[in-house]
Amino acid sequence: MVDPGLLIVISGPSGTGKGTICKSLFRRRPDIFFSVSATTRLPRDGEIDGENYQFITKEKFEDMLDQDDFLEWALVYDNYYGTPQKPVMEAVAAGKDVLLEIDIQGAMKVREKAPQGVYIFIVPPSLEILRNRINNRGTDSMEVINKRMAKALGELEQFNEYNYVVINDFLEDAVDKVESIIVAEKCRADRFIFAGARGPERPLIIPR
Amino acid sequence: MVDPGLLIVISGPSGTGKGTICKSLFRRRPDIFFSVSATTRLPRDGEIDGENYQFITKEKFEDMLDQDDFLEWALVYDNYYGTPQKPVMEAVAAGKDVLLEIDIQGAMKVREKAPQGVYIFIVPPSLEILRNRINNRGTDSMEVINKRMAKALGELEQFNEYNYVVINDFLEDAVDKVESIIVAEKCRADRFIFAGARGPERPLIIPR
Repeated sequence: MVDPGLLIVISGPSGTGKGTICKSLFRRRPDIFFSVSATTRLPRDGEIDGENYQFITKEKFEDMLDQDDFLEWALVYDNYYGTPQKPVMEAVAAGKDVLLEIDIQGAMKVREKAPQGVYIFIVPPSLEILRNRINNRGTDSMEVINKRMAKALGELEQFNEYNYVVINDFLEDAVDKVESIIVAEKCRADRFIFAGARGPERPLIIPR
Repeated sequence: MVDPGLLIVISGPSGTGKGTICKSLFRRRPDIFFSVSATTRLPRDGEIDGENYQFITKEKFEDMLDQDDFLEWALVYDNYYGTPQKPVMEAVAAGKDVLLEIDIQGAMKVREKAPQGVYIFIVPPSLEILRNRINNRGTDSMEVINKRMAKALGELEQFNEYNYVVINDFLEDAVDKVESIIVAEKCRADRFIFAGARGPERPLIIPR
């Protein structure tokens, strides 16, 4: 029997730097399976199929929807986005830790299907830094920025729907914290059972 | 206001190497306050007062007992042993993380008084390694060793009274895990509250 892996969901308002944290974690932990979302929108310049997204047709997406093949999905401005369920669940069952980086709405949907997951909420250290990050994204108007700020602030209140909060002040510190959470979660007592004395060299307490 | 520190309790049957883990952690994390037990037994050769134990008189110990000054205590072969409560609670209140290394009975008593603590159970990787460690302690008879083994095995079943299990296979790995648990516990969402937008540079989510 293989010990099942962890399903790790990293989420938070946009502008918190969750994507950057995941990229850094990906370099440190190549053993983790990073789930790739599927979308029906067209690839932008430089985007690679299977890396940034799985680019699929609308028909294919709707077929998958019919078969309940998504952990979560959304329709945004006529384009579908979703997390295919099968590769995630197969990797977890094979003992791999799987990481999803998704928005708050998506994370809450995944939690309904997979409450055993580890839900990590990334928080900006301050209002000012959140504003800078939202602003740096492009050349949006003050009105658009203020709208995004209001949305992010509202979303921040949802942090207590998550298991962990990581304040993204310094990138490498934040990545350290996410790594520690993954290590600690694997040590949680309720993930183990007592195996007893089965032989001199066999473990006494084993993952359930 | 200071964020309170964590109360970390490291426990497990004897022969699991919990003392060695704590010594290594002490070198890595000098910021952690390591609680020193009090005892009425006489110091052995090389033992330093205030380091191995606080060596105090029976009268002093019983005075402290009268004042409910212990987080846990026990009487073993006419000698008292106990964890003074005040220095531990004062350090936690001052924002320090405090570590207690105690036996299982003691840990369960501490948990009654401080359920908010982080309880870590150290487990030997196998029966054979447990026997070697128990054996290496001295030149005890097979009978004594077998008794200790039976006791340790019985105690191992209590692992699910703890929050975390750390299998002590390789010392530095085990210490890494304990460190990760401490980091992760500080990220637990229920340790935070939403502070809201109080000013551009102020944190949005703060420890409770």
